[in-house]
Amino acid sequence: MAAPETLRFAGDSLILIDQTRLPDTLTELTCTNVDQVHDAIRRLVVRGAPAIGIAAGYGVCLAVPQDEPADKERYRQAIEYLATSRPTAVNLFWALDRMRRIVDDTETADLKEALRAEAHQIHEEDRQMCHQIGEHGAPLLAACRNVLTHCNAGGLATSTWGTALAPIYHLHRDQKAPHVFADETRPLLQGGRLTAWELSQAGVAVTVITDSTAGSLMRQGKIDAVIVGADRISAAGDVANKIGTYSVAVLAKHHGLPMYVAAPTNTFDLTLPSGDEIPIEQRHRDEVACVGDVQIVPDAAGVLNPAFDVTPAELIAAIITERGVIRRPDQNSVAEHFRSADRRPNAVSK
Amino acid sequence: MAAPETLRFAGDSLILIDQTRLPDTLTELTCTNVDQVHDAIRRLVVRGAPAIGIAAGYGVCLAVPQDEPADKERYRQAIEYLATSRPTAVNLFWALDRMRRIVDDTETADLKEALRAEAHQIHEEDRQMCHQIGEHGAPLLAACRNVLTHCNAGGLATSTWGTALAPIYHLHRDQKAPHVFADETRPLLQGGRLTAWELSQAGVAVTVITDSTAGSLMRQGKIDAVIVGADRISAAGDVANKIGTYSVAVLAKHHGLPMYVAAPTNTFDLTLPSGDEIPIEQRHRDEVACVGDVQIVPDAAGVLNPAFDVTPAELIAAIITERGVIRRPDQNSVAEHFRSADRRPNAVSK
Repeated sequence: MAAPETLRFAGDSLILIDQTRLPDTLTELTCTNVDQVHDAIRRLVVRGAPAIGIAAGYGVCLAVPQDEPADKERYRQAIEYLATSRPTAVNLFWALDRMRRIVDDTETADLKEALRAEAHQIHEEDRQMCHQIGEHGAPLLAACRNVLTHCNAGGLATSTWGTALAPIYHLHRDQKAPHVFADETRPLLQGGRLTAWELSQAGVAVTVITDSTAGSLMRQGKIDAVIVGADRISAAGDVANKIGTYSVAVLAKHHGLPMYVAAPTNTFDLTLPSGDEIPIEQRHRDEVACVGDVQIVPDAAGVLNPAFDVTPAELIAAIITERGVIRRPDQNSVAEHFRSADRRPNAVSK
Repeated sequence: MAAPETLRFAGDSLILIDQTRLPDTLTELTCTNVDQVHDAIRRLVVRGAPAIGIAAGYGVCLAVPQDEPADKERYRQAIEYLATSRPTAVNLFWALDRMRRIVDDTETADLKEALRAEAHQIHEEDRQMCHQIGEHGAPLLAACRNVLTHCNAGGLATSTWGTALAPIYHLHRDQKAPHVFADETRPLLQGGRLTAWELSQAGVAVTVITDSTAGSLMRQGKIDAVIVGADRISAAGDVANKIGTYSVAVLAKHHGLPMYVAAPTNTFDLTLPSGDEIPIEQRHRDEVACVGDVQIVPDAAGVLNPAFDVTPAELIAAIITERGVIRRPDQNSVAEHFRSADRRPNAVSK
């Protein structure tokens, strides 16, 4: 598809689209060590829960240069350090856990190759996941003329089609994609910058609106459904996602519109009974208070800048994973979704 | 109070705080003719429904320079032209109607003085209105610890205390003001730039949030009430106000929080049975697509930029005017509010 290659591994480096500079400038950032990968995740050069997981997997591989022998201690330090880059998206910890198991279970002589293979496997599974979510989600959006999305859960947030945008790309193959309203998604404008960019690159019609315009459009009957991604989902189906997702969910409920969440099963954190336990990242005031070089908010005023909010499961019509669709998510339907395909939580089906 | 002097008339000129440059720079813009006043209203140098009305009144006076004789035709042309500056706030048309009546009813020899007196009277009534709304609204917010407001309906939107912020300034005199959460209010950031500036200047604690953060704060019990201004109110009590007001109203309803609207009676347009008839200004895409010199939204993506939305009366707990409080606004309670004090619609009580 026209979705760009968000990240790729070149053996001794991880090459990322620098998403902080889109859509103004399309440039790549090359990371050759763990510090650079950590910094890229923290600064949102690479963002989106699945893409963070993939980047972290490759980041572990960079802990030991190609011309040096494998060293379990250095890999373990890298895993611990990368886990501090961002707190909310569970895919980060899930990917690092997979890498840790490889470190624990592999002979040192085989370790470099095994880690690289695991990182590639995480990446490849993500590609499959995107297409599977596209396939499972497409029927839910097929009758919609206008779909709203918030933030960016597209190709730039994953390896390829994304999560929330995957059903739209799937429908677009048959020229049946709905028109997309993209919330601009303050403060960092991932909707206006990234979703609008990748959809228009792919030829999908997209209109950017401020975050507070969606409600009025719903009232006018101009939105048929909402679809978003997720950064962490509790065992009860409560969804942490970009700040503003909860507001969109309440608005959808008020207008009788379905609210869909698309995310791989590795976004579920089955250790958390509810969304209230999900840690919410608080980011720097300047993301809100300054726009470019211009200070918007006076110093004397406070600023609150949570990066995520939690949407309780009762506001969500369905969660779409690579395994299928969880309708009316709750503790039982989530548990059943995992039971039906695989008893191992967070496993990715083939 | 610490609220700044939004606008003042100096006989041959109208001097406005240039609100497009706040909070970065506090400068004044001097208008000496009708074109400059029209441009200042259109560009949002002066904004806020009541302030637009006051500025338009003075603008009519500038149609004929001080050293030239009064000319009814030139005044009438000025009135017609100023009416094209912005479409939604009815206070503009209300003020221009008052000026037109003076032109129609006054001998040419007395006209310059009579027009100036009428413009001053509009300005003076606005000052009284702010204080009366402060008095009527204060009891509604007295028990609140945290109040949310959207956009700027403060001193910068009126002559002095504002409408939505008037009850807060009233309580602040006794050091009893609630903490205020200010929605930043994209695209033009009147909340982050103007509300945060004037409240912190006055010593009221204020925290700026992105527009999509309010819902999450309500869910956490961190907001006790919402208060906003209005640009036009229908006979049924439906309120046109800054885009995003409707979303806030739906969120308040969902969380069982009272949604208050504060506006002078001249904001009512009793000729409109419902809010659906209120004309909504569509503004330029660049307000959303560009931030400063940086283009955020790619050219290939569309942008929708309505300046206002309409909140139906059933979502509003009360409308506070200079005459008192309309609880559960609807056609009957609005009609009764006007009947009880004065049979002339849009009259301002002494």
